Amino acid sequence: MKILVLNSGSSSLKFQLFTKTDLSVIASGIIEEIGSEKSNIKLSFTNSDGEQSDLKRSEIVKDHREAINAMTSMLKETKTLSNTNELAGVGHRVVHGGESFYKPTLINKKVIKTIEDFIPLAPLHNPANLTGIKATIELVGDVPQVAVFDTAFHQTIPEHAYLYALPYDLYKDKKVRRYGFHGTSHSYVARQAAKHLNKPIEELNIITLHLGNGTSVAAIKEGKCIDTSMGMTPLEGLVMGTRSGDVDPGILFYLSRENSMDIDALDKLLNKESGLKGICGTNYMGTISENAEKGDHKCRIARTMFCYRIKKYIGSYIAALGGVDCIVFTGGIGENCIDIRELSCQGLERLGIKLDKQKNNLRAKKITEIDATESNVKLLIIPTDEEYEIASQTLQVI
Amino acid sequence: MKILVLNSGSSSLKFQLFTKTDLSVIASGIIEEIGSEKSNIKLSFTNSDGEQSDLKRSEIVKDHREAINAMTSMLKETKTLSNTNELAGVGHRVVHGGESFYKPTLINKKVIKTIEDFIPLAPLHNPANLTGIKATIELVGDVPQVAVFDTAFHQTIPEHAYLYALPYDLYKDKKVRRYGFHGTSHSYVARQAAKHLNKPIEELNIITLHLGNGTSVAAIKEGKCIDTSMGMTPLEGLVMGTRSGDVDPGILFYLSRENSMDIDALDKLLNKESGLKGICGTNYMGTISENAEKGDHKCRIARTMFCYRIKKYIGSYIAALGGVDCIVFTGGIGENCIDIRELSCQGLERLGIKLDKQKNNLRAKKITEIDATESNVKLLIIPTDEEYEIASQTLQVI
Repeated sequence: MKILVLNSGSSSLKFQLFTKTDLSVIASGIIEEIGSEKSNIKLSFTNSDGEQSDLKRSEIVKDHREAINAMTSMLKETKTLSNTNELAGVGHRVVHGGESFYKPTLINKKVIKTIEDFIPLAPLHNPANLTGIKATIELVGDVPQVAVFDTAFHQTIPEHAYLYALPYDLYKDKKVRRYGFHGTSHSYVARQAAKHLNKPIEELNIITLHLGNGTSVAAIKEGKCIDTSMGMTPLEGLVMGTRSGDVDPGILFYLSRENSMDIDALDKLLNKESGLKGICGTNYMGTISENAEKGDHKCRIARTMFCYRIKKYIGSYIAALGGVDCIVFTGGIGENCIDIRELSCQGLERLGIKLDKQKNNLRAKKITEIDATESNVKLLIIPTDEEYEIASQTLQVI
Repeated sequence: MKILVLNSGSSSLKFQLFTKTDLSVIASGIIEEIGSEKSNIKLSFTNSDGEQSDLKRSEIVKDHREAINAMTSMLKETKTLSNTNELAGVGHRVVHGGESFYKPTLINKKVIKTIEDFIPLAPLHNPANLTGIKATIELVGDVPQVAVFDTAFHQTIPEHAYLYALPYDLYKDKKVRRYGFHGTSHSYVARQAAKHLNKPIEELNIITLHLGNGTSVAAIKEGKCIDTSMGMTPLEGLVMGTRSGDVDPGILFYLSRENSMDIDALDKLLNKESGLKGICGTNYMGTISENAEKGDHKCRIARTMFCYRIKKYIGSYIAALGGVDCIVFTGGIGENCIDIRELSCQGLERLGIKLDKQKNNLRAKKITEIDATESNVKLLIIPTDEEYEIASQTLQVI
C-alpha cells in the first residue's frame, strides 16, 4: 500500500508518493500553470531498474480535477502506482486550521466546512487547498483523506503569546491572534533533532529556524511550541524574500498620509515588494551573498539585516524558553547558506552559542552538527521534509 | 543665573526652573487646556522660608505666548525668578529631530526650519514643540535657546538596525526608518547607572526599560545606543497604555477587508484603543495588578503580556549587545510596580538575571539595586528625570 501527499496551490499541484511500510519516496512531481494554455508536468520516479528517472510534458490541464487525473495517469504509466486502490491514504497540506485543528484530521464534510470558514484568514491558500481536496474526493473518495495543517503545531502557544495588544473583542469576535505557519516543518525538524541528540523531546528546549523564501522561527519547550515569529498572517517576523517581516505599523499610516497609498497598495508593498528584494533588488540569497562579498552596499545591508533579525529572535526565544539546548537551521537558506548561519550566530558566545566554522562549511544534505566543542548549545542543520512529515502524520491518522 | 526647561504639548506647557550652578529645582509647573475657556495653572516652588509651596489658579490663556507670559508672571510673583535676564538659557524638549540632530542644538532660524521639515514624521508633537519655541523667542529672544531631541540619543543606531525590510528608496526618499523616542530618558538613566556602578559607560552594556504610559527599551553598547523598540513612530515595540506595540501588519489588511476599517480607523484603533486598555479596559497598571491578583482574567492576561514582551526584548537585546551588564527599570511603571519588575525577570536565570524579591519590594524614589547576590547582571531601578537631563544638556550647549 502507498501514501500520496498533495499540496495544492492556486494554479499548481505538488505531489509525492510514498511506500506505506517505511515511507520511502516512490515518485514526486509538480503540475504548474493549471488553467493556462499549456501546463507543465514534471515527474521524478524510480524505474523498474531502480534508477532515478525524470518525465516532463506539457498539456492542457484545465483545473485541479484534471491535474489529479493527469498525475494518476503518469503514475500508472510509470508503474509507480498501478491502481488508486493501492492508496492507503491521501495527505493534504492545508495552510490555515484556525483554532479548530491542532492535529492532523480525517477529512469529512464538517472538516471541509470548517476549512472553508477559515478562508478569510488565508484568502490565497485555503481556497486552493480546498480545490485539491474536493477534486481528490471526487476521484478517489473511498480512500481516507487527511488534512495536515501548517498552523496545527503552533496551537500549543499560550494565550499571552498568541494574543496581540489589541482590543480583546477582536480576538473573541474576529479571531485576530497569532497562528504561526510552517508548523509541519518546525515540528519535523524538532523531532529529528531530539532523535539525533538521543533525548526525549520532552527534555529539550529547541529553537527551529525555517529559512526559505518564507522564513520563521519557533520556540519549542519540552516538545511544545510556545511562540513563533509568523503571526496572524505569514507577514510578521523575520526578513523574507519579498515580505517585510516586523515593521512599525505606524509606517502604514505615514505612507497613507504622505505617499497617498491605499490599503491594497500597502498590502502589495509589504507582501510582494519588500524583504530582501525590497532592500537590494533580489531575493536570491546566493546572489546577495556573492554581491555582499564583492562590497555591494545594499546586498551587504540586506544580508546583515536578515541575520541580525535572526539573532534577535534567538535571544528573544531564549528568554521566552528560559534557556535553549539546541538551535536548528532548516529550509533552503538554512541548509545551504554557510555565511547566513555564521553571521546569525556571531556574537552570541556569551549566550553559550558557538559555531564551528569548519563544520559549518557545507551545504547539508543530512543532519549535521555545526557547534564548536565549547558551545553549550547544540547547533544543527536538519534538511526539512514537509512531504515526509505529512505522509507520516497521514499514516498516524488512517 | 537660572536654566528654564519647557515642554510644549498641543494644549499644554510644562516647565521647570533650575539653578545654573548645581541644577537644583527652584520651581516647576504646568499650564493645561491652553486655548480653552479656562486654563489651569499649577506651580510648585520653594518659598523664601525654604518650604515647598503650591499655587493653583484658573484663567484664560489663549495660546502658548500667553502661557509663557502667565508662567513668567507666576515665577516673578513667587520670587523664584525676578527677571528673565536671570535666565542663562532655555531648554526645549523637541520630539523629532529626524536624521539631522544627534545632540542638543542651539536654536536659530535654520534649526527651526529643519524641525518644521520633520512635522510629517511627528505630526502631533513637532508643531506643538515649535509653537512653544517661537513664543519663547518672541518673549525672551535674547536668551540662548536649546533644542533637546527625543530621537537624538538613538542616532548612533547602525543602519542594519534602523532600516526596515522595505524598498530601500522609501528610506532614501521618504526617510522611513527607525528613529526611536524617549532618548532623553534612556540616555539619562544609562549614565546614572554607570555612575552608580562606578564604571565608565564605555565599559558597560546596558538595557534600559522606560515603562510609563508610553514604553520603550534601548540597547546601549559601551555608551552608544545600538537599538530601540520604538520605531519610525512611537507605536512599535512593547505593549503600552493605549498603543498596541508590535503587531503583524497583515492584521491591518485583514481588518480592512473583513471589518471595513479605513486607514484612519486603523490608526485610531492601534494608537488609542489598544495596548493595556484594549486588552482589559484600563491602562492604569495599579488597577490592572490589583484585579489580576483577584483573578480577573483580562487583567491577568494584560499584565502577563506586558511582562512577556519586556522579557522577549531583554533576550533580544542581550543577543544584539552580545551580553549585558546591567538592566535599568525607569518610568512610572518601572519605578513603582513591584510585580511588573518581578514578572519581567522571571525565568531569566539561565541568562544570568536574578531579581531579589526582598530588595525589589518597594516604590523607588532613588537609585536602588534589586538583583540577587548570585545574579550576573546588575538590576537597577533609576527614577528618570527628563527635565533635569534637558537642563543639563542645555547647560552644555550654552
